[in-house]
Amino acid sequence: MRTYKIIIAYDGSRYQGWQRQALTDRTIQQVLEESAGELLGYPVELSGSGRTDGGVHARGQVASMKVAGLLEGSFMEEWNHILPEDIRVLDLILMPGSFHARYSAVGKRYCYLVDTREVPSVFHRRYACHYPKTLNVNAMRAASGLLVGTHDFTAFTDDKSEKSKVRTIYGIEIAVAGPLVELSFCGTGFLYHMVRILTGTLLQIGIGEKSVDDIPKMLEQKERSLSGFLAPAKGLCLEEVYYEEKKR
Amino acid sequence: MRTYKIIIAYDGSRYQGWQRQALTDRTIQQVLEESAGELLGYPVELSGSGRTDGGVHARGQVASMKVAGLLEGSFMEEWNHILPEDIRVLDLILMPGSFHARYSAVGKRYCYLVDTREVPSVFHRRYACHYPKTLNVNAMRAASGLLVGTHDFTAFTDDKSEKSKVRTIYGIEIAVAGPLVELSFCGTGFLYHMVRILTGTLLQIGIGEKSVDDIPKMLEQKERSLSGFLAPAKGLCLEEVYYEEKKR
Repeated sequence: MRTYKIIIAYDGSRYQGWQRQALTDRTIQQVLEESAGELLGYPVELSGSGRTDGGVHARGQVASMKVAGLLEGSFMEEWNHILPEDIRVLDLILMPGSFHARYSAVGKRYCYLVDTREVPSVFHRRYACHYPKTLNVNAMRAASGLLVGTHDFTAFTDDKSEKSKVRTIYGIEIAVAGPLVELSFCGTGFLYHMVRILTGTLLQIGIGEKSVDDIPKMLEQKERSLSGFLAPAKGLCLEEVYYEEKKR
Repeated sequence: MRTYKIIIAYDGSRYQGWQRQALTDRTIQQVLEESAGELLGYPVELSGSGRTDGGVHARGQVASMKVAGLLEGSFMEEWNHILPEDIRVLDLILMPGSFHARYSAVGKRYCYLVDTREVPSVFHRRYACHYPKTLNVNAMRAASGLLVGTHDFTAFTDDKSEKSKVRTIYGIEIAVAGPLVELSFCGTGFLYHMVRILTGTLLQIGIGEKSVDDIPKMLEQKERSLSGFLAPAKGLCLEEVYYEEKKR
């Protein structure tokens, strides 16, 4: 048995997320497993670094895959050849058998793209949330500063389970390029819907519907009703998964 | 009668170009005319600044439209509401009756996007030509310098008509952003397939298949067989149409 680390990019528009589900749903994992199985001649299973929701994209999703023996040098090319155009395998790296895309991961970076044009760009319609407002980016950056660090993020998830909601955010960067605003979130890991709720909260602070001072209350009172709206899936992209200590 | 100037953006992927054709083809002009006619209650005709081929995009196509009277302030919003998501009206400006999107135009700017990644970006698959090569951008810039100016561009068009092939290119700029290379062409107007053949020629110079010194020969000998390949439509985007003297 050999273990490979696979770096994958996808346009999530046509898929019901990463995770294999009922056979009637089309998911990224399912498409990758079926195509790899077709090439190898036996069924394979991929373990993703984490799920992405339906409509969410990736520039650097990581999965681990166990196969019977060494893969041919041409395997990645053949795989991309039979994959649909909106899923691409970017790299295939032989790893020690202990490697696991999810358990070995130490951090992740997500980007959320916002299109503030009055009329949305046709080229970003699948990759950005249309939010035609004037944003106070300084207020958004001040609020981001209060979110960075180790906190209980219960107010920023739709996960109702009993599991720990403590996570560490290493950094939130907000870049403005004309009418496009890109929020970049780097941290140990993110809870269900967390990046999208953080984005919705920061956008509401950007238009003055919520204030920077509300952030400590959200963190302390751990109430989902206090934080912002769930920003749509299509603006979100998993950029990178880290497997060594994140250098900042 | 009132004359309006309309600025339009579109993702050309799903369309057989700008120009209205047989009823079975779906074109940008047809979709715009039908939707405007639906709102106005009478048929209208749009005159584009020029045709774009099937699969070519626009960030700033311009059309003129004659209507029976002043349009309501909400017309653009209503129009965008019924248009498909991949066509957006960006502006609607009341003009003197003499304005005509094609005859009044004095210049145009096109961009051609090239993705040189080994594995193509899923996000650029509809908007860039995949050309996984190392490009000598300096050679491409030197060749561009020889193309700028007023020349007979017979070697750079697939238009076989007798009409004059003399055009003026004001500037060609080549910008590199990581694996993406963007070629920007600004000129009085461009012949059928001209920007795509110029791009193909510059790419072949970029990989050493043709040389900078071949450019004067192409311009003098006026032979299509001497110039480069026709770069695919999907990388091309009409950025802007100029109606006053171009400020550089």
